[in-house]
Amino acid sequence: MGHILSAEQFDPNSLNDIFERTYELANLDRRELIDRHIGSQLITFFYASSTRTRISFELAARSMGVGVTSVPDAEDTSSVFKGETIEDTARVLNNYEADIVVMRTKVEGDTAKAAAASDYTSIINGGDGSGEHPTQALLDAYTIQDEFGGLDGLNIVFGGDLRRGRTVRSLTKLLANFGGNQFKFVSIPELQIGQDIKNRLDEHDIEYEETTDKLSALSDADVVYWTRLQSERPIPGVEITEEIINQFKIDAAAMEVMPHEAIVMHPLPRDSKHNEIDTAIDHDPRIKMFDQAGNGKLVRAALIDMILSEEL
Amino acid sequence: MGHILSAEQFDPNSLNDIFERTYELANLDRRELIDRHIGSQLITFFYASSTRTRISFELAARSMGVGVTSVPDAEDTSSVFKGETIEDTARVLNNYEADIVVMRTKVEGDTAKAAAASDYTSIINGGDGSGEHPTQALLDAYTIQDEFGGLDGLNIVFGGDLRRGRTVRSLTKLLANFGGNQFKFVSIPELQIGQDIKNRLDEHDIEYEETTDKLSALSDADVVYWTRLQSERPIPGVEITEEIINQFKIDAAAMEVMPHEAIVMHPLPRDSKHNEIDTAIDHDPRIKMFDQAGNGKLVRAALIDMILSEEL
Amino acid sequence: MGHILSAEQFDPNSLNDIFERTYELANLDRRELIDRHIGSQLITFFYASSTRTRISFELAARSMGVGVTSVPDAEDTSSVFKGETIEDTARVLNNYEADIVVMRTKVEGDTAKAAAASDYTSIINGGDGSGEHPTQALLDAYTIQDEFGGLDGLNIVFGGDLRRGRTVRSLTKLLANFGGNQFKFVSIPELQIGQDIKNRLDEHDIEYEETTDKLSALSDADVVYWTRLQSERPIPGVEITEEIINQFKIDAAAMEVMPHEAIVMHPLPRDSKHNEIDTAIDHDPRIKMFDQAGNGKLVRAALIDMILSEEL
Repeated sequence: MGHILSAEQFDPNSLNDIFERTYELANLDRRELIDRHIGSQLITFFYASSTRTRISFELAARSMGVGVTSVPDAEDTSSVFKGETIEDTARVLNNYEADIVVMRTKVEGDTAKAAAASDYTSIINGGDGSGEHPTQALLDAYTIQDEFGGLDGLNIVFGGDLRRGRTVRSLTKLLANFGGNQFKFVSIPELQIGQDIKNRLDEHDIEYEETTDKLSALSDADVVYWTRLQSERPIPGVEITEEIINQFKIDAAAMEVMPHEAIVMHPLPRDSKHNEIDTAIDHDPRIKMFDQAGNGKLVRAALIDMILSEEL
Repeated sequence: MGHILSAEQFDPNSLNDIFERTYELANLDRRELIDRHIGSQLITFFYASSTRTRISFELAARSMGVGVTSVPDAEDTSSVFKGETIEDTARVLNNYEADIVVMRTKVEGDTAKAAAASDYTSIINGGDGSGEHPTQALLDAYTIQDEFGGLDGLNIVFGGDLRRGRTVRSLTKLLANFGGNQFKFVSIPELQIGQDIKNRLDEHDIEYEETTDKLSALSDADVVYWTRLQSERPIPGVEITEEIINQFKIDAAAMEVMPHEAIVMHPLPRDSKHNEIDTAIDHDPRIKMFDQAGNGKLVRAALIDMILSEEL
Repeated sequence: MGHILSAEQFDPNSLNDIFERTYELANLDRRELIDRHIGSQLITFFYASSTRTRISFELAARSMGVGVTSVPDAEDTSSVFKGETIEDTARVLNNYEADIVVMRTKVEGDTAKAAAASDYTSIINGGDGSGEHPTQALLDAYTIQDEFGGLDGLNIVFGGDLRRGRTVRSLTKLLANFGGNQFKFVSIPELQIGQDIKNRLDEHDIEYEETTDKLSALSDADVVYWTRLQSERPIPGVEITEEIINQFKIDAAAMEVMPHEAIVMHPLPRDSKHNEIDTAIDHDPRIKMFDQAGNGKLVRAALIDMILSEEL
């Protein structure tokens, strides 16, 4: 029984195994896949909602014949309000003989607690509060690998809300295990990347730069990873003006300076008010964010497959 | 990839194909059906709730082996609150390689936008605000066809809230394509059928009459299609009195004057406070509203089948 | 078509059939089970939420190849708010040809009404307000049978909120049909077992005792069945003090006086604030509450199996 709790549990070798499996399953015919794990059972147990994560896991599982049981809003409908601990919940799901529980929690560390209480069921962390979202980091890495054939020697530019964006933090940590990458972090100072991430990069002797100069950073980028400004969660003292929004947008002018081989990623959802990736450039072939979303299903299928085959 | 966006996309020939398929599938053994579309995936993505529509689609899909993933309350749990456009949502579901997304939206035209953004996934409009609900119109038409062997030469009496009842509007439009039908609209003037529908009937040279005289209208009816008064959504200046409720009820007296071969339809739910179809007459064999509901599953199965077989 | 509406519909013989089937299915290989009821359809239709009951039914059904359609919050999303009666809802589900609807309602007697309106679909009561929760009583009884090889001649100690705990009431009624059992009810007088249950025990000439002396009651117990104090639903005039909570806990001292062969049951969820079964003793082998939860899935699988095989 393997759990997936943190992106950091995967070294370059195990990442490679996951990506090979992803590629292999993606190229199988549906009819070949649909009987692959007949009889296995997966539960999505979400204390905080996330349609995208939930349905990509469910589609991935169903594509291999896994039975899927959904609890999309455990906070509201479950025993939680009666004061049950996550350990007790996990023990019950374990004794229902669920093979895998994909769990999203509001509290950092809760999926690890669930894993500790399970002796049969594998727990997959589908996002634990401000903690980790390991499968997002894996699908991001897979998207890069799929385009560049590797995860090293790349110029990677991150932009948007780097302070709070969990995906940027996780992907940076994961890529820090690979050699020869250079990072640029583009944002206003108030939303710059956290000190913990910078320390991590320092430990690995990885070059990075913090800047507000978007165009210069983009001009030699391989990977451009952009995120929402999360204006629905205001930070006291930080005003996100119209000017900032426009300054930190990926628009036609940004695409102009970007190399032809670069790719633009975004974890989605894109904010329709800000258009941080301008809809006007959606058809530029370098925009990969929807392929990236599609990869989410494929990578999650590989993870489910490897857990059920006891290879993870 | 075919979309189902409007009842008006179906001419008499294509309707006939759908009804033949419905009949054919309804007569297959469950065991014959259950492998029919193994490996296909359908998502119900509902921004506005509708248990009946959702579960009839889900049961129909599952009866043919289609994997079903549910998002019953996209408004609350999805990325919507973060300001994602329907086009972005559709692109993601498309890249998850869902074969069909049944979508209910609060905004008219949104399912058409989703369809325009999908190049793999078929979109089925499960109701788009005050716009269309095409599969309801199809199941209504199927119910009539199943009883009378055709959709022409019928006296059709509509009653209840004709102004806002989306089902009456859609069915009227669909039946306007067939010859020799006569329509009677029974309601108080404030809830009468809209001018746009009357214009449509005029264009097709179809006879119709607006009246408050329920019993006279019913006396030579073939099809009686009744609807809720929607008193939970009051119209300023329109008072729905107890007297009006009783006057516009289908009760024992109404059944008395109705021909023996007539059928009574209702899109359900019936309002238990108003009892617009009196529960006292539920066992009259002319009351077909629960068969009509059952037909919903059958017609939806045929539509799913035809889309997945690339016949639609 | 058999319905499961009340624990009292099962006599010792039919209980035995259910337990034999449970045991038999639990020992089948997953691959043998997964085709058992291919093509059958079950709906969970819950007007009041209950994650545990819902997912154990769904997992049980899916393990035998039954298609499962979920309505976890019918109150909010269904036609209910438009004033549909439970009978109309049941007729629609019946005409969708659902084989089984597991229904949880807020109102006592509503599942029986649904059953009366169904001529094809079997209704399983998944809890009807303050009424019954028959499958909980069956899984409780199965757990005891599984440990002691029978349901007679046992010393059974109930504790906690005996006044309102539906599970205690149902299990007591069910066990009253078996000979030679002795009951002890341990609680403060304000939360003691109801007069109706005591009358029932008197009718069957069954010995019982009400007491506040926990340790003495536990000292010769076979089965210890403990429940939450439901402090989230205060009773006017009844104060649940810290002292009461501690006095009525199953803790190390309680385990000390309990026989080695005794078992401790709890319907879950356990209240993490009260810890009525102290987490410190979770690893005592006599604590069977998580096995009991697991049995819920197994017993429900047997019930679904017997209904679909027309043996119930």
